This record gives sequence, C-alpha cells and structure tokens, in this order.
Amino acid sequence: MTHTIREKKKLLARVRRIRGQVEAIERALGSEAGCDQVMHLIAGARGAMAGLMAEVVEEHVRTHLVDTKKYPDALDADATEQLLEVVRTYLK
Amino acid sequence: MTHTIREKKKLLARVRRIRGQVEAIERALGSEAGCDQVMHLIAGARGAMAGLMAEVVEEHVRTHLVDTKKYPDALDADATEQLLEVVRTYLK
Amino acid sequence: MTHTIREKKKLLARVRRIRGQVEAIERALGSEAGCDQVMHLIAGARGAMAGLMAEVVEEHVRTHLVDTKKYPDALDADATEQLLEVVRTYLK
Amino acid sequence: MTHTIREKKKLLARVRRIRGQVEAIERALGSEAGCDQVMHLIAGARGAMAGLMAEVVEEHVRTHLVDTKKYPDALDADATEQLLEVVRTYLK
Repeated sequence: MTHTIREKKKLLARVRRIRGQVEAIERALGSEAGCDQVMHLIAGARGAMAGLMAEVVEEHVRTHLVDTKKYPDALDADATEQLLEVVRTYLK
Repeated sequence: MTHTIREKKKLLARVRRIRGQVEAIERALGSEAGCDQVMHLIAGARGAMAGLMAEVVEEHVRTHLVDTKKYPDALDADATEQLLEVVRTYLK
Repeated sequence: MTHTIREKKKLLARVRRIRGQVEAIERALGSEAGCDQVMHLIAGARGAMAGLMAEVVEEHVRTHLVDTKKYPDALDADATEQLLEVVRTYLK
Repeated sequence: MTHTIREKKKLLARVRRIRGQVEAIERALGSEAGCDQVMHLIAGARGAMAGLMAEVVEEHVRTHLVDTKKYPDALDADATEQLLEVVRTYLK
C-alpha cells in the first residue's frame, strides 16, 4: 500500500485490533469458555474484518481505478459514493 | 438503466427468474412443504439475487464511475477487475 | 410447512412483500431508472429475503430439531437463543 | 469449550491459522504490497473465519441444544443436518 501515511496508520490500527480479537478467540477456545462466548468473539472479529475490507476497497476505488494524476477529474464523485454505499451494505 | 439493450435483456431475464423463485417459495409456504424445502428455495433465491447485484454493480462500475465519452482511457482495467473480483467474492 | 396458522400467515405476508420488491426491481430495470436506484432496490429485497430466512430457520429450530411431543423439555432455551442470535447476525 | 480434546485441537489449529493470516495482512499493509494483494489476504482470512464459525455453531448445535445425557435420542438427526446445511451456505 503506497498511500498516505495517515491512511496506512489507520488501516494498521484496525488490523492490530483484529489480531487482538483473534488472540481472544484463541484464549477462549483454550480455556473453559462456552460456545456462546466463542461465537460472540468470532462474530465481533468477523465484523471488524468486514470493516477493514470496506476501508481497503474504498481506498482502492479512490486511488487506483483512475490515475488521478493523469485524469484528476475523471472519477465521478456521485457514482463512486453510490458504489461504496453498496459495498458497505454487503460488508456489514 | 440506460445501458445497452443486450445488457438490459440479460438483467431482465435474471430478475424474472428470481420472481419465479420467489413465487415458488410462496407456493411452498402455502402448501405442506417442509421447512427443509422452504430453506432450500430461499437459499436459491438469495444466491440468484446476489448474482443480479454483482451484475448491476459491474455495470455501474464500467458505465458510471467514469464518463467514458469524455475520458475513454481513464478507467484502469486491472484495478477494475480486482475490484469486481472482491465484489463477486462477497456477493456469493 | 405444517406449523401454526398464525406463523404461516406471517411468513406468507413476508414473501408477498418480497415478491412486490422483486417486481419493483423488474419495473426499474425496464424503465430508465439509474443503476443507483436499482442497486438500492436489490439491497432492500436481499435484506427482506435474509429476514425471511432467519424466520424460517427459527421456526425450523423450534419445531423440528426436537420432537416436542415426545420430549417437551429437551430443547435448551438458552442454547437455542444463543444459536438464533448468531443466525440473525449472519442473516442481516 | 468443554468438548472433546480432539475437537478442541481442531478448532485451535483453525484459529492459529487465522492468526497467521491476520499477521500476513499486517505485514502486507506495512510493506509496499498493493491494495489488490491486501484485498486477497483479507478475503482469505474472512473465509477462514467463516469456516471457524460454522464449526463452532455445529459443535454448539450438537452439544448444547439438547442435554444428550438426559435425552440421548431427542435431537433429530435429519433436521439437524438440514439446519447445518443452511448455516454452512450462509457462512461461506
């Protein structure tokens, strides 16, 4: 990912949080935690993973679909927003 | 949808097939069909709906993200394909 | 579905609403509606379909997993609720 | 999770594999890997997480829905299989 430092930091923070959630699943499986608790932890990690994917897809759309140096005005803002809305709905 | 006649026909055929599937669910619920059969029919209709969405999203990306009359070469083919691959994975 | 009349009516009402939503997609595709509107309609129909599936799965779990005439107390209420919570999360 | 040692080992192996996949995402984000590669890694980790959830749900259904010591024959095998099939379809 060659993008802005700020965006990169945000994504890294997200993925580290997910790593923490996966480690919590591992601990819960290793201990006497109930299925119930394990299912909750997995559902949480899966939601966080979906959020990360939505973020990376958005980054990809805004940065790579069009070479913005060559065509700074080519990407239609409304159509992009409509696309990302669908992506977010399905990645929830 | 203002796109090509051919694309429109394809999408209409898809949505009509989905209507048929929904009507089959309705009949199954009205008859003595088992939950098992009803769940199968719903899973099928849901898969078909996801396929329709993937198709419309692809159409949207290829036709609306960039005004291709004004910028015929602006949309990056590889980046577009990578995006659509993710969309298809999540819409399965 | 051999279940209660009341439950059956509720499910039939749901599936008829979905049929209406699919017909709206068909009309939108046939008219000059934009991709944007079509994507919205599909997302709505898909959500409704997921809700229907969650309802039928719940019915299936409560009615068929255990022969409640023979074993009226065998199905664990808490464990059932935990399962259905996961099902609802994934069917959103 | 109080289940069999063997089942527990299998689940732990799965979650450790997912941890490895999340660490690979972290490394990819930290390096100059493209969005494309990051999206692929996330899609893989998400699929693995869905597989883990399906496994835990199956365990939950088979072990907790019915107190099998008290009611060894109460859980209907066919209805259980039908439920798990739906769960697997939606967790893919």
